[in-house]
Amino acid sequence: MAMNDSPSATPTAPRPRVFTAALIVIGDEILSGRTHDKNIAQVAIWLGVQGIRLREVRVVADDTAAIVEAVNALRARNDYLFTTGGIGPTHDDITVDAVAEALGVAVEVHPEARTILEGYYATRGGLTEARLRMARMPQGSSLIPNRYSGAPGIRWNNIFLMAGVPNITAGMLDGLSGTLEGGQPLLSETVGCWVAESEIAELLRTTEKAHEGCQIGSYPFFREGKTGANFVIRSVDAALLATCTQALVAGLVAAGRDPVPGGI
Amino acid sequence: MAMNDSPSATPTAPRPRVFTAALIVIGDEILSGRTHDKNIAQVAIWLGVQGIRLREVRVVADDTAAIVEAVNALRARNDYLFTTGGIGPTHDDITVDAVAEALGVAVEVHPEARTILEGYYATRGGLTEARLRMARMPQGSSLIPNRYSGAPGIRWNNIFLMAGVPNITAGMLDGLSGTLEGGQPLLSETVGCWVAESEIAELLRTTEKAHEGCQIGSYPFFREGKTGANFVIRSVDAALLATCTQALVAGLVAAGRDPVPGGI
Repeated sequence: MAMNDSPSATPTAPRPRVFTAALIVIGDEILSGRTHDKNIAQVAIWLGVQGIRLREVRVVADDTAAIVEAVNALRARNDYLFTTGGIGPTHDDITVDAVAEALGVAVEVHPEARTILEGYYATRGGLTEARLRMARMPQGSSLIPNRYSGAPGIRWNNIFLMAGVPNITAGMLDGLSGTLEGGQPLLSETVGCWVAESEIAELLRTTEKAHEGCQIGSYPFFREGKTGANFVIRSVDAALLATCTQALVAGLVAAGRDPVPGGI
Repeated sequence: MAMNDSPSATPTAPRPRVFTAALIVIGDEILSGRTHDKNIAQVAIWLGVQGIRLREVRVVADDTAAIVEAVNALRARNDYLFTTGGIGPTHDDITVDAVAEALGVAVEVHPEARTILEGYYATRGGLTEARLRMARMPQGSSLIPNRYSGAPGIRWNNIFLMAGVPNITAGMLDGLSGTLEGGQPLLSETVGCWVAESEIAELLRTTEKAHEGCQIGSYPFFREGKTGANFVIRSVDAALLATCTQALVAGLVAAGRDPVPGGI
């Protein structure tokens, strides 16, 4: 993605560079419903802290063609690509080979990963052929530390192959914290209200429209026998965000509603 | 998808038709990590009961171009396409317009939906312009009943637009139960074992290879201070599934392991 220059002729500040990422969740167990995915949310939140926006996610089966298609579609249009799942020692772990195929590079045993696995399994029955599979990586990879279970994650340029087990994924994200270039984090404020969103839809629309650079999302719920909604205002600009939030709160008060700053 | 004929010259039974579906989860709130998705798993499980396989999922932003791209890619290669999210009354609910754009059809107020909303809002402040948005549908749509909150879901041929709030989605799926043609359900058995999957990777591979028509997935975990894994055997053929499961259990016993039928 190229730097965004301001299209305007007036001397406004250039629009900040937005960094984006995509995530591919790999695994039949998610598509069967057996396993409830926990990685989308944790990767999304972690990326937000890095100043990177998660722009799209695909969940694909343990199927080489499906992985190759997703990798090539998503890496072409995002700054970063993450995958979770399929990097273990068993026959259904095909992520490494599929990603290498997508990249057009060979798979080879990474010497440093081999050393790590030799150390980890020294007291656990030794480095068998199956375990050595976890040192196989696309040519040109570097390692993402795994503090829990020996086998490292894999970095290949701006592509990151991580484990599928959520606490191991979390450890790998931790190891990457602060190492990726991001932009301004997307800030948010939440305002809750015991109101049907349909009753104040016009207020939401006009408030968003009057505050360029802010987006307002409306998230309805039904709790304690009552209808309510949380309105999430997002912006990279803290001052704009505050102004838009105040305008929304004032609008709700003017409409006879009782807004709850911070959300319900 | 065409009927699969057996490629073999021997008089085997034709391979059963496999019905597939894709799901598009629409919403900035999933991509920001604010909301943990619950619809992927519930749609997956529901589809399984209908004899339909969830083959792929995409999570996209509240962005027309992203929705259009996903709809057209996924509807072309699956029997059914489901979406969740973005069909409410507020300005960020753009699913209907985006899907209509993908389909190349106009959006119009559906008379039956209008009648339902008039009835629902008769005692709730009346059918405002914002609420009438929820009766707008791609031309040629029929309704998916919503037992919870008035606004119906939308069916357009084999495309199903559902609410994003999980309990409303669940009600819509309930209303569709038994109405979609599926194939043989994918059956599964689970065998658990307190073993590192890397120690029996070869057994898993050879067992799967020896039982055509069965897939074995390996799902490791670390609990109670111990390493274990569940092995999920899947097949549409109950007899094959039983044979493969027995072979895996026998193989684990022969390897000095203590398999737990049903999983750990």
